[in-house]
Amino acid sequence: MTAPSDPDRRERRPLRVALLGCGVVGTEVAHGLLENSAELAARAGAPLEVVGIAVRDASREREGVPAALLTEDAEALVDAADVVVELMGGIEPARTLILRALERGASVVTANKQLLAEQGPVLFEAADTARADLSFEAAVAGAIPIVRPVRESLAGDQVQRVLGIVNGTTNYVLDEMTTQGLDLEDVVKRAQELGYAEADPTADVDGYDAAAKAAILASLAFHTRVSIHQVAREGIRHITRDDVEWARRTGYVLKLLAIAERTDEGVAARVHPALVPTDHPLAAVRGAFNAVFVEAEGAGPLMFYGQGAGGRPTASAVLGDVVSAARDRLIGGKGPHESAYASLPVLAADAAITRYQVRLEVADRTGVLAQVAGVLADHGVSIDTVRQSEALTAAFEAEPASEPAPGAVRDEGEPVARLVITTHAAREASLAATVSALRDLEPVRQITSVLRVEGV
Amino acid sequence: MTAPSDPDRRERRPLRVALLGCGVVGTEVAHGLLENSAELAARAGAPLEVVGIAVRDASREREGVPAALLTEDAEALVDAADVVVELMGGIEPARTLILRALERGASVVTANKQLLAEQGPVLFEAADTARADLSFEAAVAGAIPIVRPVRESLAGDQVQRVLGIVNGTTNYVLDEMTTQGLDLEDVVKRAQELGYAEADPTADVDGYDAAAKAAILASLAFHTRVSIHQVAREGIRHITRDDVEWARRTGYVLKLLAIAERTDEGVAARVHPALVPTDHPLAAVRGAFNAVFVEAEGAGPLMFYGQGAGGRPTASAVLGDVVSAARDRLIGGKGPHESAYASLPVLAADAAITRYQVRLEVADRTGVLAQVAGVLADHGVSIDTVRQSEALTAAFEAEPASEPAPGAVRDEGEPVARLVITTHAAREASLAATVSALRDLEPVRQITSVLRVEGV
Repeated sequence: MTAPSDPDRRERRPLRVALLGCGVVGTEVAHGLLENSAELAARAGAPLEVVGIAVRDASREREGVPAALLTEDAEALVDAADVVVELMGGIEPARTLILRALERGASVVTANKQLLAEQGPVLFEAADTARADLSFEAAVAGAIPIVRPVRESLAGDQVQRVLGIVNGTTNYVLDEMTTQGLDLEDVVKRAQELGYAEADPTADVDGYDAAAKAAILASLAFHTRVSIHQVAREGIRHITRDDVEWARRTGYVLKLLAIAERTDEGVAARVHPALVPTDHPLAAVRGAFNAVFVEAEGAGPLMFYGQGAGGRPTASAVLGDVVSAARDRLIGGKGPHESAYASLPVLAADAAITRYQVRLEVADRTGVLAQVAGVLADHGVSIDTVRQSEALTAAFEAEPASEPAPGAVRDEGEPVARLVITTHAAREASLAATVSALRDLEPVRQITSVLRVEGV
Repeated sequence: MTAPSDPDRRERRPLRVALLGCGVVGTEVAHGLLENSAELAARAGAPLEVVGIAVRDASREREGVPAALLTEDAEALVDAADVVVELMGGIEPARTLILRALERGASVVTANKQLLAEQGPVLFEAADTARADLSFEAAVAGAIPIVRPVRESLAGDQVQRVLGIVNGTTNYVLDEMTTQGLDLEDVVKRAQELGYAEADPTADVDGYDAAAKAAILASLAFHTRVSIHQVAREGIRHITRDDVEWARRTGYVLKLLAIAERTDEGVAARVHPALVPTDHPLAAVRGAFNAVFVEAEGAGPLMFYGQGAGGRPTASAVLGDVVSAARDRLIGGKGPHESAYASLPVLAADAAITRYQVRLEVADRTGVLAQVAGVLADHGVSIDTVRQSEALTAAFEAEPASEPAPGAVRDEGEPVARLVITTHAAREASLAATVSALRDLEPVRQITSVLRVEGV
């Protein structure tokens, strides 16, 4: 028998908690720690004492936060804490302060996805070396518990794939485009007015935020370090109202997905817009909500749904990590944390295997479909279905067609047929070569769009 | 600083795992432990050695399970184990064996919802006394990680309400009734043929299985012991095709919900069919899938979705608990487990406050609506909307009306109006009194149905 350690030797004095940063999330975390201290002490097993909050300007007042707690000396604060909560964001000085805390054996809780996605290996190795907790539930999908379920609840299972809607802004944009029939630019403008989107929406719209989360999810699910630089990334900037409408008419919803998957060859992570079948649980994720869909060998499909951003939801995830870190310290050990024991190869972007929907305009002549199908066959891409747009409703036809690509030859007098081809699973590289060859095919007037299909 | 304990003092010898029971789930757990031992050892931090599997008849062969592991002496097996996995089901001998294991300081993992719902207090107190782990992820919603997210990820938050679809059979039945327009009996028959429903469907159809899970969820969410005997329970046996059709036409889907909620007065748990708005995430949970929707103060709405039953999914949850129990033993402490520190009062069934939809048939005369509304007002029940069925489509009218209640007076010559009244939130007791008074109202011909509305 391995007997549990003697409970009387456990530490019961207050655990000293330091906050680094006091923005929207930091303020909420401070309120939570200060206002619910009795409840948190009961759950953690000891009082959690806020020893200070490091800010850039300690003279500026924060509502509900005692001025005496504010300090500009982050290093001294780190050195005085058992648990360091980093909510500054960005790379520096967050990175240096976290490493300093870990080296001292303090437990660290962070919501900093950018730092984890770029510097994860360094941070996790430092945590391993110091045998200290490094928790990051709030960094992946805000309030949604995903780190703990994947790491602990699925510890006896094998994750095969993760499909995540992890960026609320782009989900809101695509949802509005779908339900209101609006153009991307108009929705982004409205999202900015509502405060859902930043003045510079690049991080969201071009998929950088989702790519950081994809890297963290892939590392977590496959026990392998994956950095943001290894994530293939494509945003939603090029998505048109036509794309959204065609998705609907062919039984799909357009979502920006962060995908992490394991194949026989290794693991891969990518972010791109994808067609998701309307009856897939991810299709029902509306507005700015997030969801992470996990396919595991034993458990089968699982989905975790909730708010992916916002001060209070993010603070909830941070506080959960703080309580866990405190409990781990009290039982005298560190919690099981992300370990890269599997170290699987991380695959290049063009190794991804998925289905595609290609929309194209061709000259409406006999034999064209055979020519197109021939190009796909030559590249080993197998066709699932081909539809002619004419089979859809006339209402759609009345809408203006997309602009032809620059340089596209268009004979205004010649009748044009629109084709929608859905493929079976094919390698990204084969599809790219196929599209390139289709573009060169004489009767092809335009490749209107190429979208991946996921969740089938 | 509370320093983590010296890692060199940690136990690294194999942890001895005993399985009690080798049915569908037990066999899958045995396969998992035997076939993935290297992966599990990496995750747990030490090898997991299966020391034996207690069965009633050790001479019967089990596929993929070495006969040498089978034993009929469960007590001796319990005494030789670090981690005891109870998958026998039922109250005895499971209860006695679990208590024996806990008293010896072994960690216990169980999927036995019936035992937890009936004997939870005894078992958790024994675990507390022995400072041993008692884990039960598989007992609530099969493969869906819900225990760990609620207990740990939300440890810094306050759960307000839990709405769960926790019985796959009844969800399948209601879903088929909804999509195929079938009667309950026919769908239950089909579910039995498909193996989704037991020959005696009472445990599912009458809500006993869901009530056990509601008790466990309430205990978990509110840190208060709630037993199955404190759960108000109503099954789906009385649900008609008409109910399902009316739900659809008024913007709802009928689901059997396990509800645990916290009010200013205490906590309450109940199970009953409920109308859920079609745009609520729970409405999209189809077929035999389960989902648990959690409303937390900070995190806001969260949902956990997946398979609630089946050998492999349940085994995944059990194995996750086994790995966690092993890790906890290796770090020399016990994991944070369900503690009843809050001990809130458990409220009686008629204290529940919710919205209702009442369908009734009244004599089609001037002034009847005022009389009906008067009865509701007299009982303090406020009306949200009143619809006349005639406002719905004629197609529905063509369907046969429900049978009048026994003793209902029906004047065949008199025109009858159908009313659908949706109330604002009202106390269960007030509603019961209202319905009783409506039944006695002269122009009321029949109370066709009374259904609660949740998730609004």
